[in-house]
Amino acid sequence: MRLAVIPGDGIGPEVVAEGLKVLGEVAHDVETTHYDLGAARWQRTGELLPDTVLDELRQHDAILLGAIGDPSVPAGILERGLLLKLRFELDHHVNLRPAKLYDGVTSPLANPGPIDMLCIREGTEGPYTGNGGVLRRDTPHEVATEVSINTAFGAERVVRYAFERAVARPRKHLTLVHKTNVLTFAGSLWSRTVEEVATEFPEVTVAYQHVDAASMFFVTDPGRYDVIVTDNLFGDIVTDIAAAVTGGIGLAASGNLDASGTNPSMFEPVHGSAPDIAGQGKADPTATVLSVGLLLDHLGRTEQARKVNAAVAFDLSTRDAAQPIRTSDVGDRLAALASG
Amino acid sequence: MRLAVIPGDGIGPEVVAEGLKVLGEVAHDVETTHYDLGAARWQRTGELLPDTVLDELRQHDAILLGAIGDPSVPAGILERGLLLKLRFELDHHVNLRPAKLYDGVTSPLANPGPIDMLCIREGTEGPYTGNGGVLRRDTPHEVATEVSINTAFGAERVVRYAFERAVARPRKHLTLVHKTNVLTFAGSLWSRTVEEVATEFPEVTVAYQHVDAASMFFVTDPGRYDVIVTDNLFGDIVTDIAAAVTGGIGLAASGNLDASGTNPSMFEPVHGSAPDIAGQGKADPTATVLSVGLLLDHLGRTEQARKVNAAVAFDLSTRDAAQPIRTSDVGDRLAALASG
Ligand SMILES: CC(C)[C@H](C(=O)O)[C@@H](O)C(=O)O
Ligand SMILES: CC(C)[C@H](C(=O)O)[C@@H](O)C(=O)O
Repeated sequence: MRLAVIPGDGIGPEVVAEGLKVLGEVAHDVETTHYDLGAARWQRTGELLPDTVLDELRQHDAILLGAIGDPSVPAGILERGLLLKLRFELDHHVNLRPAKLYDGVTSPLANPGPIDMLCIREGTEGPYTGNGGVLRRDTPHEVATEVSINTAFGAERVVRYAFERAVARPRKHLTLVHKTNVLTFAGSLWSRTVEEVATEFPEVTVAYQHVDAASMFFVTDPGRYDVIVTDNLFGDIVTDIAAAVTGGIGLAASGNLDASGTNPSMFEPVHGSAPDIAGQGKADPTATVLSVGLLLDHLGRTEQARKVNAAVAFDLSTRDAAQPIRTSDVGDRLAALASG
Repeated sequence: MRLAVIPGDGIGPEVVAEGLKVLGEVAHDVETTHYDLGAARWQRTGELLPDTVLDELRQHDAILLGAIGDPSVPAGILERGLLLKLRFELDHHVNLRPAKLYDGVTSPLANPGPIDMLCIREGTEGPYTGNGGVLRRDTPHEVATEVSINTAFGAERVVRYAFERAVARPRKHLTLVHKTNVLTFAGSLWSRTVEEVATEFPEVTVAYQHVDAASMFFVTDPGRYDVIVTDNLFGDIVTDIAAAVTGGIGLAASGNLDASGTNPSMFEPVHGSAPDIAGQGKADPTATVLSVGLLLDHLGRTEQARKVNAAVAFDLSTRDAAQPIRTSDVGDRLAALASG
């Protein structure tokens, strides 16, 4: 396996180190190449994602990313020029975000019940394309627009992926989350796409919910969801709610997939670079390790993925919540469990 | 006070009746005119909001609305043709949604702590303007767009209103919620607007949060918020999370304000028409009564508003959660408390 590693900023390098530690225990054929991308490189050289680096990244089977971002960089620069650029250039149209409440993990909900959902967020369209503009900037007559772009091509491929995942799960249930009563053009496209693809998956039951209602039910009744499919922006929001109710972003893993396999997929913890705790060895690497699990699963290494996930599930069920996290201790424990 | 009443669909008429019951106890000069708008009228006549009705509505000091919506009407028709039409025609640029965890109310959160936030959502711009379109509909090459429109004029007036509310509250704290790292055109306009208006309110401390992070913190740490200002779509989502953590939409009140006073403002519970329980006398009218409180406050009837809110607070603190809600009993209790 040729793995490109982008440790990134803040706690990124720390959590990635533990992810690789665990990966090394279950997969003995991993060749890693590290890429220095993120705030530090931008500060030093003004470079975000040079074309040569992008070309090299394309030569890999997968990418593992830590976290990108630093307060010293103006908002938007790294997000647009690096993180989103990677997603768009590598056609990461499926943004995969499982949210499972593991045994032993404390939910902020009083009665969470079992939660095990798979959020599938579109990754290359919606209001994320940079489309829009500004007129009469800095005057009282300024107009700023943001355009959400939705295509049949783009919706169909992510909806199809969602159905494929849903049909392989015990509950076989899929919920489309959108705002069809207000965003009628995009909403209609998404609804029709789900209806059409549904005919190919008669075993899957399908529901629809407006994003505002779903955001509420993610809090009051998250157990009702199985697979969720939604657009880029709604997905950004609801997956963070899903992460919150299942124990926080310290545990939230994600995959940015080119489901066609043309480009390498990229796996990253949902959390940011957390500069306030960087370098102190107290970041929780669990989300990164779970992202490694998604990576292995995506590459068809089902048994290796199972080992990693089982290690995390066991470790979480036996963790002492009173004990502060030590990044490398968690990694050591997970590595030992995964290798066993 | 000349009050236009739109009972609407489903449980709308039931909860509005209780709202008026309570209003009648504290304000003895209310002249009401009922308007038959909603699903039934549309089914009967095809009319949504005739111009003559709109003209009549304009002659009032305020509007009280129950709920609009019925499964027999295709999604979007009533929302766009009636509810949003009212907001746009009457220039309801401030969508006011308080979220307070009252004593005696059970939050779905294990440790909610005190929650008392005032969400201020823009009401006439963003992706709610109907701007957008579709190309090559029903072909594999379909493209559907939604355009979020943001103006300096529109952002400034709602941001100013938010600062005015913030400065009048004990904590004097305001949080802008947006997604400036991705929606850079609109995000920049909103950020600059907040910065500019902030100079006029030096006592108010200002924070910024991305909508995804805010959605998470609304669940994990809602007590940190005081006043929130955000755009139309983000506001739709985060106010439902705020409602969820403070006991649900059964308690969530809202005001659609023309803060300039040119047009009557409209007050409505956030919940929908709940056709499944309509006509059974078991809908909770509390959100409608709290909306009446917002109405009185908006009309400068501070003492009457105080009575209504105190009645609700007392009633909630003494409600027996095991006892099923009886719509008219709740109204009777609140009316008696408010009149006392
Ligand atoms: C950093 C930001 C651009 C990104 C997004 O909005 O997709 C992040 O919030 C995420 O969810 O991965
Ligand atoms: C019904 C719908 C159009 C409306 C909105 O999106 O504003 C509702 O969700 C609300 O929050 O009042």
